[in-house]
Amino acid sequence: MNALGKKIILVDQDGVLADFEKYFLLEWRKKYPDDFFVPLEKRQLSRVFDEYPENLRHKVSTVYMAPGFFINIPPMPGAIAAMREGLALDYDMRICTSPLTGNPNCIKEKMEWIEKHLGKDFTRRTLVTSDKTLVRGNYLIDDKPVVTGTCIPEWERVIFDAPYNRKIQNPLRVTWDNWKQVLWL
Amino acid sequence: MNALGKKIILVDQDGVLADFEKYFLLEWRKKYPDDFFVPLEKRQLSRVFDEYPENLRHKVSTVYMAPGFFINIPPMPGAIAAMREGLALDYDMRICTSPLTGNPNCIKEKMEWIEKHLGKDFTRRTLVTSDKTLVRGNYLIDDKPVVTGTCIPEWERVIFDAPYNRKIQNPLRVTWDNWKQVLWL
Repeated sequence: MNALGKKIILVDQDGVLADFEKYFLLEWRKKYPDDFFVPLEKRQLSRVFDEYPENLRHKVSTVYMAPGFFINIPPMPGAIAAMREGLALDYDMRICTSPLTGNPNCIKEKMEWIEKHLGKDFTRRTLVTSDKTLVRGNYLIDDKPVVTGTCIPEWERVIFDAPYNRKIQNPLRVTWDNWKQVLWL
Repeated sequence: MNALGKKIILVDQDGVLADFEKYFLLEWRKKYPDDFFVPLEKRQLSRVFDEYPENLRHKVSTVYMAPGFFINIPPMPGAIAAMREGLALDYDMRICTSPLTGNPNCIKEKMEWIEKHLGKDFTRRTLVTSDKTLVRGNYLIDDKPVVTGTCIPEWERVIFDAPYNRKIQNPLRVTWDNWKQVLWL
């Protein structure tokens, strides 16, 4: 809860606001049309790098390491409207994102993406950190099956539904269609 | 305190780890040698932009908006050794920095600066946020006279001594020479 009594809702960027997996597959098929690929609904692991066989992994990383990859990811359907609605409903909406280490453009493009789709106000509402347990909040909406870090989190974990996290048992699981109902907002 | 019982020490980047003010003045005098300037010891305000007369402010911002400015700032004397020593003494040292809005290279170069001077481990120990009250920790070491935000901070405020914050009354004021003694570490 912030000092004004508003609930703080931390929202992950890739896989929640930005449709990383869909865009990866699109670019993968464009760049390597003759190679094996994993359809979105068949994905079992949250990191696409881990999902592909070892002999293809160097190619996998060339896709999201390419300059321009992050800025061109399409928003997840409903995500932009949900963030704006959350603010309008007086929740303290924040973006909480971990940068891809090894891609120096990643942070820059992620911030540019936020400004492009949500505006400057949301760039000021963004926290970039490799450890989300260090961030205060009531909820963390994240597609990663397990979020670990150095602290016992203050926030309650909310799974953003994706094929690769459906085995996780978690009391709170949302999409951008039902998030307000599930979180009782 | 993190889950291992280690004290979390949040350390600001500009003016604490990186000698922003000194490098600004150097570049200012190089770029505009015939213009008025404020010597470091005479600085009264923490934002250099506010310190200079209105008719020079457009020039002031060209200095730190220039690509390459942030990556080339020299470290504050003692800062790099202190961060490493803090880790060795088993404190959970973190860098907590606010990006300059309006300079898209700022975040990228700040992360590159951290990697260059402190290594990849510290890029993973960095949090980028416009609101430091959202970050958990035992102490925040920052040169800004007042740090405000949306939450009542969890951390105790520590002033990193600088000419422009000497009017602030604060129980904890440190330099890189005495920080361990002052914080009883």
